Amino acid sequence: MNAPERHLVLSHAGRPPTFAITAINADGEAVPVAIPCEHPLTIYVDKREVVTLMTLGSDPEALTLGYLRNQQLIADLDGILAVQVDWEVNAVAVTTRKGGGPVTERLERRTVTSGCGQGTMFGDAMDDIAPLQLPADTRLTAARLHWLIDTVRERQCVYRQAGSVHGCALARNDHHQQLLYFIEDVGRHNAVDAIAGRMWLDGEDGGDKIFHSTGRLTSEMVIKAAQMGIPFLVSRSGITQMAWEIAQRLGLTLIGRARNRSYLIYTGAERFSQQE
Amino acid sequence: MNAPERHLVLSHAGRPPTFAITAINADGEAVPVAIPCEHPLTIYVDKREVVTLMTLGSDPEALTLGYLRNQQLIADLDGILAVQVDWEVNAVAVTTRKGGGPVTERLERRTVTSGCGQGTMFGDAMDDIAPLQLPADTRLTAARLHWLIDTVRERQCVYRQAGSVHGCALARNDHHQQLLYFIEDVGRHNAVDAIAGRMWLDGEDGGDKIFHSTGRLTSEMVIKAAQMGIPFLVSRSGITQMAWEIAQRLGLTLIGRARNRSYLIYTGAERFSQQE
Repeated sequence: MNAPERHLVLSHAGRPPTFAITAINADGEAVPVAIPCEHPLTIYVDKREVVTLMTLGSDPEALTLGYLRNQQLIADLDGILAVQVDWEVNAVAVTTRKGGGPVTERLERRTVTSGCGQGTMFGDAMDDIAPLQLPADTRLTAARLHWLIDTVRERQCVYRQAGSVHGCALARNDHHQQLLYFIEDVGRHNAVDAIAGRMWLDGEDGGDKIFHSTGRLTSEMVIKAAQMGIPFLVSRSGITQMAWEIAQRLGLTLIGRARNRSYLIYTGAERFSQQE
Repeated sequence: MNAPERHLVLSHAGRPPTFAITAINADGEAVPVAIPCEHPLTIYVDKREVVTLMTLGSDPEALTLGYLRNQQLIADLDGILAVQVDWEVNAVAVTTRKGGGPVTERLERRTVTSGCGQGTMFGDAMDDIAPLQLPADTRLTAARLHWLIDTVRERQCVYRQAGSVHGCALARNDHHQQLLYFIEDVGRHNAVDAIAGRMWLDGEDGGDKIFHSTGRLTSEMVIKAAQMGIPFLVSRSGITQMAWEIAQRLGLTLIGRARNRSYLIYTGAERFSQQE
């Protein structure tokens, strides 16, 4: 990690991921079941309400930072003085150095944005990422892809215990085979935002990384990966037509249906190599 | 169907659900693959921009109406004169009778809302559904649940062909065993909104219906089902803690992990009966 020195005040308010209830099964028996938690978290930037996210709550500070980064509401981590989560009121207070000038402008301009196909960030984001250059000379080998698929499968704790969450992972694309982050959340957009927040905090670039998601790759997921500068995007699930079109335009390598030793390379196959 | 007489101008601009591309498989072979379409659709109400949804596009008019209904931007179908989709500009123009009075107020007041755990409708919606009464004397039998699970599995066309979509279904809860609607979309929130739109158009109440979703049941899905007055909510996937809490508060019967003859009844078990 090469995190720059910084005096950022951060709470550490991660919460337990599951909650125990009793359900009735098909035989009429009462059985104990663990279900994932879901908490509202309202983001305030300099006391101005920005959005309410529904989250598992395991890394709320990274989620907040990644949301502000991916929505392009704050361009630079140095502009942020504090990120303080208070679950008593389900809120996180972000304090900026300048008192919110650029944030405010963006907030006034934007329309409703979000995940799951409802209210996307599509318009603005496409303009912003059009000039983006992803590294052309980097390669992903089949062996490294297999390692990533196996590693993510082993790490899916909340999913295995309680289901109904998505997991996102970021790994180094080199011979060290290191999984940097693995974050689960009730929404796949939260999980990818939390990864973006972690990358910011640790000063990690995207160019030498591989991003993995258990969820579907829609246009918004591809846009977020591109914003983070990550050339490889892998999913256990499938892709949509617009994800495919945007990945083609940006020259991003998109791999889906990745389970065990089976996968499909949809775009950017020139960056993939069967040999080490 | 007991649709009231109405002079609503509706386009019929449904689009094909899949798109054919070529991908490279793990053996390095080029293989034909069908992927689900994803189109931006910007909703304008009386020329005022409301939101951009990313959709499969199979039932854009119902999706538009259901979105406006579930976001409580328009309270009554009688207030709408026309819903006209134009894919040339990826837009749908909604014309209201009054020229948007209540819509405008709601739009100004609300914060970012949406699915997938990002920007939910939680705050306002909880206030609105608190006084809601779901029918207490209705029953769902095990036999009818089995029929619904089997029927939805057979109907999942796009999913089977292309994956990466969610399906929502609405069925009558009586001895006719009739599946009224089955709608697939790239986001589960779009699919449930499109069902709400269809119900409006056909004048269908929720009280004697069962709602089925292939996707996870989060707080927002439960709130939407309650808004539509549907007492039974079934998912092939799991639930979150907040979905469970809201369902308990509203007395909604929540059934998850419903596959073949296996399922879990999380809440409202008193409405479920093993016998016919």
